[in-house]
Amino acid sequence: MDRRDFLKTAGVGIVAAGAAAPTAALAKGKTYNWRMTTTWPPKSPVLMDACELFVKKVETMSGGRLKVQLFAGGELIPPLQTFEAVQQGTIQMGSSASYYWAGKVPEAQFFSTVPFGFNFQQMVAWLYHGGGLELWHEIYAPHGLIAFPMFNTGVQMGGWFRKEIKSLADLKGLKMRIPGLGGKILAKAGVNVTLLPAAEIYQALERGVIDATEWIGPFHDNIMGFYQAAKYYYYPGWHEPGTMGELIINKAAWDSLTPDLQEIIKCACAEITLWGLTAFESRNGAALQELIQKHGVKLRKFPKDVLDQLRKFSKEVYEEEAAKNPKFKKVYESFLAFQKKITPWAAISEKAFYDEMMG
Amino acid sequence: MDRRDFLKTAGVGIVAAGAAAPTAALAKGKTYNWRMTTTWPPKSPVLMDACELFVKKVETMSGGRLKVQLFAGGELIPPLQTFEAVQQGTIQMGSSASYYWAGKVPEAQFFSTVPFGFNFQQMVAWLYHGGGLELWHEIYAPHGLIAFPMFNTGVQMGGWFRKEIKSLADLKGLKMRIPGLGGKILAKAGVNVTLLPAAEIYQALERGVIDATEWIGPFHDNIMGFYQAAKYYYYPGWHEPGTMGELIINKAAWDSLTPDLQEIIKCACAEITLWGLTAFESRNGAALQELIQKHGVKLRKFPKDVLDQLRKFSKEVYEEEAAKNPKFKKVYESFLAFQKKITPWAAISEKAFYDEMMG
Repeated sequence: MDRRDFLKTAGVGIVAAGAAAPTAALAKGKTYNWRMTTTWPPKSPVLMDACELFVKKVETMSGGRLKVQLFAGGELIPPLQTFEAVQQGTIQMGSSASYYWAGKVPEAQFFSTVPFGFNFQQMVAWLYHGGGLELWHEIYAPHGLIAFPMFNTGVQMGGWFRKEIKSLADLKGLKMRIPGLGGKILAKAGVNVTLLPAAEIYQALERGVIDATEWIGPFHDNIMGFYQAAKYYYYPGWHEPGTMGELIINKAAWDSLTPDLQEIIKCACAEITLWGLTAFESRNGAALQELIQKHGVKLRKFPKDVLDQLRKFSKEVYEEEAAKNPKFKKVYESFLAFQKKITPWAAISEKAFYDEMMG
Repeated sequence: MDRRDFLKTAGVGIVAAGAAAPTAALAKGKTYNWRMTTTWPPKSPVLMDACELFVKKVETMSGGRLKVQLFAGGELIPPLQTFEAVQQGTIQMGSSASYYWAGKVPEAQFFSTVPFGFNFQQMVAWLYHGGGLELWHEIYAPHGLIAFPMFNTGVQMGGWFRKEIKSLADLKGLKMRIPGLGGKILAKAGVNVTLLPAAEIYQALERGVIDATEWIGPFHDNIMGFYQAAKYYYYPGWHEPGTMGELIINKAAWDSLTPDLQEIIKCACAEITLWGLTAFESRNGAALQELIQKHGVKLRKFPKDVLDQLRKFSKEVYEEEAAKNPKFKKVYESFLAFQKKITPWAAISEKAFYDEMMG
């Protein structure tokens, strides 16, 4: 091979946007007035900010042809009815996270986050280059929905505990608020798993109704005031290593859009993903320092044997789910194969970077 | 505080897009025919693919009102004259990396990558939430340019060596091809630093004219065939921990765009950044396996004392540059402050994730 032509090999296939003469459609100047609900409480920092920014960017890019009226969770639709509302076309769009729909679509959890799964960078790699996004669309299609990744929390925290966790035995009998697959895994360790709406967690923790809870990360957890009710703050967030938000859209409404507006929505999602991920990244450090230095929070790492056991339990849970649900199995296998493929590279790139950075 | 209102605290300030009634401007239907050059050779995998995808997405989103004719490096403008060509307005846009302009604008290097600097996630956090992007615009303004982040290579590799590096002494007298700040730092370790155009590196390495070279990462390095001339392949890429590409735009041309087209360019850049970063992430693993298993490459980690010394030299280099250049000092101080702010969080989030993932 002539090295002067060093990169003249066949280019990597690119997924081009369908650019079929959109000028005509655009010239018609049709204006869409859409509504968007969310699973986030009103004024939620970062989360609702991201949605507001999304709506503004879409309106700007479309020159006002796609106007979106934004509602926080509960203002128009109860937060956890977002899926049905968008499905029925009552509203056209929703901002949420796909693991909220685990009851109806268990396999959708892989598109938000699963315990011992992908961090942000790996999740995007799977969605964009590992067939993840196509699978997501395939899974949502029978529900009359389409979705795109929109924002990411980064690695979350492992949760707040009233007592120190020194071994797996310390988890046994503990009452903890933790949803989804994380809860199923902890149940295998003997944890008494419970679910509480956001507004009730603090009081339950303070009164000892629960012994532990997980939430998001230092920035949001600090606002929740959990440090007043529990002093041990654990990492890593093994159960949510990089939770991806979603923009879900009614499929018929999506299909009614011209290609320019479809691409505008997709690219706005990407911009909001970067903005949101790094909003968390840039705020968590200061909040963590405040929790430790001002509020006397004791930062602890889960012991290695606890994490090893939970990882073992996570495989059991996934295999049990896969055995009874072929769609779960299909998504799980794609996830596993991609994880295997990228791990050797992660070890000498990102992991080596952090090892070197932290001395 | 009433915890039922848990997230009703003042929202994080958002940087809203200037959405001043763009409908009128759009209705005029003005069409822009722009040209874009790059610093990448024709058909460069991932790099030119990303540029093609960008151009298509911009054309789609604008409904054909912003058409961009794309040229690879050398097709219209020599690669390293991209800065001047865009500055003079000969062409309107360029895809490159800001460290190529170190000779003219040394402080611009912080917006691509610097040794022992940010990885992808941290770089985006600094640009979006740490004042980095504003600084970038301030630094480019006197040159008649504006820039936005567009794609990222992720963590690069440390380079190819004909002999094993067991200590700092092994670097002394070595002839290595490495540009920029990385080269200045290695010079302090006694390395004989040299610069060669891409097309000449392989032959120089094979003939022993140089003893070592760095390039990008497994996917691109494999195509270059370096494994035939050197067997030791080192990590981590301490000198390029997450190189950010840039889209540079002639400022007068940018100012002539309506707000919808400006926002379209910005969001297309974000989408291409995610696509590009993860194109590298998803291809490097397989290429690394091929290099090791098929081509007998010996993967090595730089010894800790070598990295510690290089980190020490890097601080000396930055302080020397800062002492003679107030703009370099200003950007360096912003970079340092942000790095200090986010490091404690990185330690218990991303680093802890990788530690757990790799067992």
